Amino acid sequence: MDRILSCEAGRSIGEPVRLSGWIHNIRSVGKVHFLILRDRGGLIQAVIDAGEVPEIDVARLGKEYVVDVEGVVAEEPRAPGGAEVRIRALRVLAEAEEPPLEINRPHVLRRTRVDSLLDHRPISLRAPEIRAIFRIQSALIRGFAEHLRSEGFTEIKTPKIVATGTEGGANLFEIRYFERKAFLAQSPQFYKQMMVGSGLERVFEIGPVFRAEKHETSRHINEYVSMDLEMGFIRDEHDVMDMQVGAIRRMIECVAETCGRELALLGLGVPAVVDIPRIPFSEAMDILRREGAYASGNDIDPEGERALCRWSARERGSEFLHVFGYPIAQRPMYTLFREDDPSVSRSFDLLFRGLEVTTGSQRIHRYDLLVERIRAHGYDPADFEYYLQAFRHGMPPHGGLAIGLERFTAQLLRIPNVKLATLFPRDRHRLTP
Amino acid sequence: MDRILSCEAGRSIGEPVRLSGWIHNIRSVGKVHFLILRDRGGLIQAVIDAGEVPEIDVARLGKEYVVDVEGVVAEEPRAPGGAEVRIRALRVLAEAEEPPLEINRPHVLRRTRVDSLLDHRPISLRAPEIRAIFRIQSALIRGFAEHLRSEGFTEIKTPKIVATGTEGGANLFEIRYFERKAFLAQSPQFYKQMMVGSGLERVFEIGPVFRAEKHETSRHINEYVSMDLEMGFIRDEHDVMDMQVGAIRRMIECVAETCGRELALLGLGVPAVVDIPRIPFSEAMDILRREGAYASGNDIDPEGERALCRWSARERGSEFLHVFGYPIAQRPMYTLFREDDPSVSRSFDLLFRGLEVTTGSQRIHRYDLLVERIRAHGYDPADFEYYLQAFRHGMPPHGGLAIGLERFTAQLLRIPNVKLATLFPRDRHRLTP
Repeated sequence: MDRILSCEAGRSIGEPVRLSGWIHNIRSVGKVHFLILRDRGGLIQAVIDAGEVPEIDVARLGKEYVVDVEGVVAEEPRAPGGAEVRIRALRVLAEAEEPPLEINRPHVLRRTRVDSLLDHRPISLRAPEIRAIFRIQSALIRGFAEHLRSEGFTEIKTPKIVATGTEGGANLFEIRYFERKAFLAQSPQFYKQMMVGSGLERVFEIGPVFRAEKHETSRHINEYVSMDLEMGFIRDEHDVMDMQVGAIRRMIECVAETCGRELALLGLGVPAVVDIPRIPFSEAMDILRREGAYASGNDIDPEGERALCRWSARERGSEFLHVFGYPIAQRPMYTLFREDDPSVSRSFDLLFRGLEVTTGSQRIHRYDLLVERIRAHGYDPADFEYYLQAFRHGMPPHGGLAIGLERFTAQLLRIPNVKLATLFPRDRHRLTP
Repeated sequence: MDRILSCEAGRSIGEPVRLSGWIHNIRSVGKVHFLILRDRGGLIQAVIDAGEVPEIDVARLGKEYVVDVEGVVAEEPRAPGGAEVRIRALRVLAEAEEPPLEINRPHVLRRTRVDSLLDHRPISLRAPEIRAIFRIQSALIRGFAEHLRSEGFTEIKTPKIVATGTEGGANLFEIRYFERKAFLAQSPQFYKQMMVGSGLERVFEIGPVFRAEKHETSRHINEYVSMDLEMGFIRDEHDVMDMQVGAIRRMIECVAETCGRELALLGLGVPAVVDIPRIPFSEAMDILRREGAYASGNDIDPEGERALCRWSARERGSEFLHVFGYPIAQRPMYTLFREDDPSVSRSFDLLFRGLEVTTGSQRIHRYDLLVERIRAHGYDPADFEYYLQAFRHGMPPHGGLAIGLERFTAQLLRIPNVKLATLFPRDRHRLTP
């Protein structure tokens, strides 16, 4: 008999079925034993009546044993899902030691220390609500890719071992590459721009990036998944923001369409992405002053990001907010600026529920200007030979952005620490599992 | 006016349009100038009649200039695509130096030295037939992901910075990770198995892997994209091979459906994937002997792979061939073997047009047996603490495989060197661009 999933049992009332999974819990009432079986579809109650199937040695079973059962589905309004399985036969596929975490209790995510969840990652992920985070993350990846493919983008895979950094060498992890030194890519920035110039015009990449930053916060990890896009023949940075709105809308639709069960487990809905308001940096500063938050300098601090998002939710009905036109001073050397005011960059950030989740901009596409800016940042254009090759031979106006997958996931699911939205996070002290 | 792509012009005969792209070539006949314009949609002829638009300074233009043109589409049977654009206005978006490669000549791929194509990668990718390779590669990624999602798989992203290798430490690139040593992941093997055990059951990952191998062949690169899948609750390795057949069929369908223009440029069709024949290793050895090839030992050498594929094409009508049941001696420690003959592993390879493109197997899922095999391979189980955690607490029967994306692309497109199926390859000597 072919296996069915727990979530499919309700369609087979009265029929014989086969299910496989882990024993999430066992409870006995006299000679009747209630197993909660866990599989990728969810949980289901499976009943062993020792009077009917005395050959099953229930005493031998334990939590997390992997079993294969055959039985008949019965309606049972008191059971989760409204159906249970009356077991006729049971086979142990793998034995198991008692798990180090109580993954079968509700609210494991909130009740367990972050380090404990991460130290026992292969086990903590078995908790249905923790696993749900990564089902949703998978749907976010899918939505990002689907939207961009529908807009004519090509998915690219660029190298993670590089000879130099995109920003001159700070915060790079160093590798021994045969007889040479090399580094881990901080960003596919140069490569994705080169690919726009190669004539693919519109490219995206979903891949790891590496930052040797000594941060120890709930917002930072040293290896994360960057969802990058870069597009040519734009009018200005607003074309890139438009593309981002479409991508985020599709990402959230994907979650809503395919992860209903997971959202229910987490007790969450999805935010509306009708339209994302856009305000210039100067207006953001005015708002911060009016809201009584710190507003000075060339950037917005974490408290300012929270204040702006509160303002956006209240005044514009949006949990997302685009801020554009940041001062050029804090932006990378490849960022384009306004012709009428070179102190204003053509960059933008996307804030979501109080945190920056995206940074993007229109880039410089003129060779001469790029060389000038590289020099102005104190670098030697000779160190950017390959990057500059694309510009020397004709580069269209272009721009792009990068979304941090784990950070976006955490904000969407209201998870207070980005590490919990990462399967196996890497931080200053954590290199395992 | 909104921009259209060159491939869309045929639908707008007699209408005004706007196009943007690179000047692929220029040819002048008296006062009439024929520009070949290149955009992500392909090539189109655009005509400047100096008698009609004397204000356009054609002498100023050159190959690879990025331009924006407005004009009217006219039927022109002699032009590629059957239509051309009569230019009314032209704006230069970016100037360009003459490119170092003649990317506008046919057969650039075959006529240019590999090193020259790679040294000038941002430029060589502009040749339509070279760009086509990566449009097709993008479709392969999509097909792999689409098929697996439709089969209930979750896309995962696992760390590339790891504390130890999957195979005890050979061929690992070393990183300085803050105050410690770390390594680049050779494979997501342990992580994907742990994720099966976490209850996701079916997972896939498309990401970089790193091998510090000193090979210098046309089949090897030191960083490549591995398309991995791992699935739980299988009967045996044939379930994994079945999943692979479905994935490959969808990958090739995706190419056929979305890359007709690219295949035409390369002068190629796609192979039929009706069914992939499966033969045991012992039969493969018999065939090799009959075919007069080398057949001895625990593995099949490159010449043997070619001979088997010739046999498969001739006798079974398939360019793909699954060989299973390799001797356990040459397989990794986590490979399961037959109960009735422990010298025969439950592993398989997929050969395609004379080359191995996939390796997979059913894995050991019993904790005790895995510990025993780790010891038998001379390793210390304590070094595999996190991996073993998943098994100690209940792991279902499972198996999986990995397809090398670049190698698969090269075989599909009959490209003789895998480096040419890689955007920016990394080998023993090449770390740039």
